[in-house]
Amino acid sequence: MRIKILIRLKKQILEPQGKVIEQSLNNLGFQGLENIRQGKLIELDLPENLNQQEKDDIISSACKKLLVNEIIEEYEVLG
Amino acid sequence: MRIKILIRLKKQILEPQGKVIEQSLNNLGFQGLENIRQGKLIELDLPENLNQQEKDDIISSACKKLLVNEIIEEYEVLG
Repeated sequence: MRIKILIRLKKQILEPQGKVIEQSLNNLGFQGLENIRQGKLIELDLPENLNQQEKDDIISSACKKLLVNEIIEEYEVLG
Repeated sequence: MRIKILIRLKKQILEPQGKVIEQSLNNLGFQGLENIRQGKLIELDLPENLNQQEKDDIISSACKKLLVNEIIEEYEVLG
């Protein structure tokens, strides 16, 4: 089972790359694209034989131990 | 309306950061997390007064003109 982990800086943390993208899109003539933030996407395959609770536990543990800096980042799991 | 653009390297392109994450998780004792690939997440607000076709057109155009290198990357739009 393939899952997506979306990792983004917390709202209150400045994310300069998003600002650069926003300005560049504006310079290219795109109007009204706002609050652009760039984050990370991590995709991985989980073993098929796990139940939902086990999957949640593995992902949560992997995020806390390696993937996410919970001081400044938050994450969301999709799929 | 807030949308997510997921940008990933095409399957056939080597993605070294994902390999590093895979090995690190393995070293930490995580078993069976495979085919890990890291990509980019871009989130932005679109104007509310657009219809679905206009939204699709803006996103597609922004991806082609700035956000995505379609030679080596592919993208997916969520939400």
